[in-house]
Amino acid sequence: MSLVVTNIGELITNDPERGVRRDAAVVVDGDEIVWVGDSAEAPAADLRLDADGAAVLPGFVDSHSHLIFAGDRAAEFGARMAGERYTGGGIRTTVEATRAASDDELRRSARRLASEALRQGTTTLEIKSGYGLSVADETRSLRLAAELTEETTFLGAHVVPSEYADRGADEYVDLVRGEMLEAAAKHAKWIDVFCDRGAFDGEQARAILKAGAERGLGLRVHANQLGPGPGVRLAVEMGAASADHCTHLDDADVDALAGSDTVATLLPGAEFSTRSPYPDARRLLDAGITVALATDCNPGSSYTTSMPFCVALAVREMGLTPTEAVTAATAGGAAALRRTDLGRISPGARADLIVLDAPSHLHLAYRPGVPLIRHVLQHGAPR
Amino acid sequence: MSLVVTNIGELITNDPERGVRRDAAVVVDGDEIVWVGDSAEAPAADLRLDADGAAVLPGFVDSHSHLIFAGDRAAEFGARMAGERYTGGGIRTTVEATRAASDDELRRSARRLASEALRQGTTTLEIKSGYGLSVADETRSLRLAAELTEETTFLGAHVVPSEYADRGADEYVDLVRGEMLEAAAKHAKWIDVFCDRGAFDGEQARAILKAGAERGLGLRVHANQLGPGPGVRLAVEMGAASADHCTHLDDADVDALAGSDTVATLLPGAEFSTRSPYPDARRLLDAGITVALATDCNPGSSYTTSMPFCVALAVREMGLTPTEAVTAATAGGAAALRRTDLGRISPGARADLIVLDAPSHLHLAYRPGVPLIRHVLQHGAPR
Repeated sequence: MSLVVTNIGELITNDPERGVRRDAAVVVDGDEIVWVGDSAEAPAADLRLDADGAAVLPGFVDSHSHLIFAGDRAAEFGARMAGERYTGGGIRTTVEATRAASDDELRRSARRLASEALRQGTTTLEIKSGYGLSVADETRSLRLAAELTEETTFLGAHVVPSEYADRGADEYVDLVRGEMLEAAAKHAKWIDVFCDRGAFDGEQARAILKAGAERGLGLRVHANQLGPGPGVRLAVEMGAASADHCTHLDDADVDALAGSDTVATLLPGAEFSTRSPYPDARRLLDAGITVALATDCNPGSSYTTSMPFCVALAVREMGLTPTEAVTAATAGGAAALRRTDLGRISPGARADLIVLDAPSHLHLAYRPGVPLIRHVLQHGAPR
Repeated sequence: MSLVVTNIGELITNDPERGVRRDAAVVVDGDEIVWVGDSAEAPAADLRLDADGAAVLPGFVDSHSHLIFAGDRAAEFGARMAGERYTGGGIRTTVEATRAASDDELRRSARRLASEALRQGTTTLEIKSGYGLSVADETRSLRLAAELTEETTFLGAHVVPSEYADRGADEYVDLVRGEMLEAAAKHAKWIDVFCDRGAFDGEQARAILKAGAERGLGLRVHANQLGPGPGVRLAVEMGAASADHCTHLDDADVDALAGSDTVATLLPGAEFSTRSPYPDARRLLDAGITVALATDCNPGSSYTTSMPFCVALAVREMGLTPTEAVTAATAGGAAALRRTDLGRISPGARADLIVLDAPSHLHLAYRPGVPLIRHVLQHGAPR
């Protein structure tokens, strides 16, 4: 069926040829955008949605989430807000709960969060494993993730699970890049490594990413979140699609990103919820680096599904303008997933778009915390 | 009609005798809470709402908002986020738009925002005038505000309107405490003054508050937002119910509040949206001062209606624990309005309560930006 959205007060196309249009219309046929132009010239379609002067933008592309888990860590959060520091150690609590949960429990929880994200405008959601950390549990996590998205990421290298505490990290690394990768890869499009203190060092991360690339997976890296380190430069060197977090960067890291196709994916929800300093997104944009915004949704360090919240934080805390933040949350996320069909509103793109309860995209930062998503089209379907 | 809420996983009563209860139930009769106890012992009622293990808390009491206005200032916000400083000067832009608007335009806009606030759990909303700044326009603003709330505040002394630029502030002060107060008072419960640089000095504020008190209005003060000043001490000296903002306090200000019944109302949305330093709420609580949280909803410096967002910010930025922030957003707001029937769940209180889409009140800070309000009862009515 075809659908036309008319009377769009402000259309954010993310298309250099089309820019920001006033009084615009968009025509969708099936799951694809087929026409963009003036509202007065819009062709007829089977369905008609009057945007009534509201702003329309591409659906958010949340390129970093950890939705497959059980349990919550509200008490750990409360303790942290009373002064305890975030070390990433709580991940093992979630691993224990996730392993103990049934498929249906994990499925229900992930579906609930994906649906919550959709209501807030997220039409594409990357989902990582990483709370299984055994061959069977990582494979299961990815199988469940694949029910919800095509953007699945194998993160066996999230932390070293406690049963390997005596045997050492290297033995676990061998498992990850061997048997675990072999079993997980059939449900995964990407491989990711948490390359940071308390997790995996540069050499271990390189070995795992190399094995994933040989198995045909695209590369992503959790890099430089908790402190300076080799993660970002490793991501660039290996041609990763994205280096995620990028909280602690030195000049060499910025130079490496600037000369590469690796996107810097910023996760302000994590800094918010761990009370950590925010990365300087301005510095990255000024260096010509493509920046993405994502939620990092997980029960430990960033339990939000809200891309509008991340946009508002990026403006308040990271030096982005509202327009740059919206671009990062849409086109930036698409680039971080190397998807040319997402994050833009122009013919040939996938019909993922949101109608705001506001006349301008500026309102996403100007009206923080307020639910501003009036309508969502995902793959052309009203949701 | 009576209504019972059963299977409450966590009930925040804000009642020293009852504290936080597990497996609780609440019975409402008409617009009043009549019973609180164990879910297993709950009496029957005409209607039954199963909370299914969720957290229930008193409805939010937003004791500081400026909902009667026309126009938006998204462009000013965008410029500020690109580096311009907030001076409060933009208030005059809104005054111009508000004066030019019809009653119906103002009513529609205010109703829309009040309804947005209600969906986010705000069951009591104080509303100020302050964008009229003439006898007729202030009176009209208060008449419209009184259609939405009993907590109306006359803020003729918001700024000196531009038509008084040549005549001087004192002449405007005479108007406010004379003819304007006389006309406005019949629709107002409170009087408020913006006592800060660029607005009214201590002497002017005192004269206006004194006139309001003589006219039978309760007192509130916008104090110490943009810099240090006499506002907080004046509020205490005159027995104001609340000193609002309290961003820049010295030890004498804190001591004054600590020895008084004046509530310190913090408005973190304003610091968020003007990129200003946050007040230290911890210091206030440690001094024994009652703290309230409110949105300051207005189109210039804090265009949010979201009390959950303010709770999350207060935890991240002001040093409150999640529990303290929820208390400030409920019981604190009630204290700031000197209402003993609000902000608590115990027999005799007004039946204003919210059922979260979460097992604990902690989630309001733990899950920032996520719409977590599942159900709202306002004056006993499901909304």
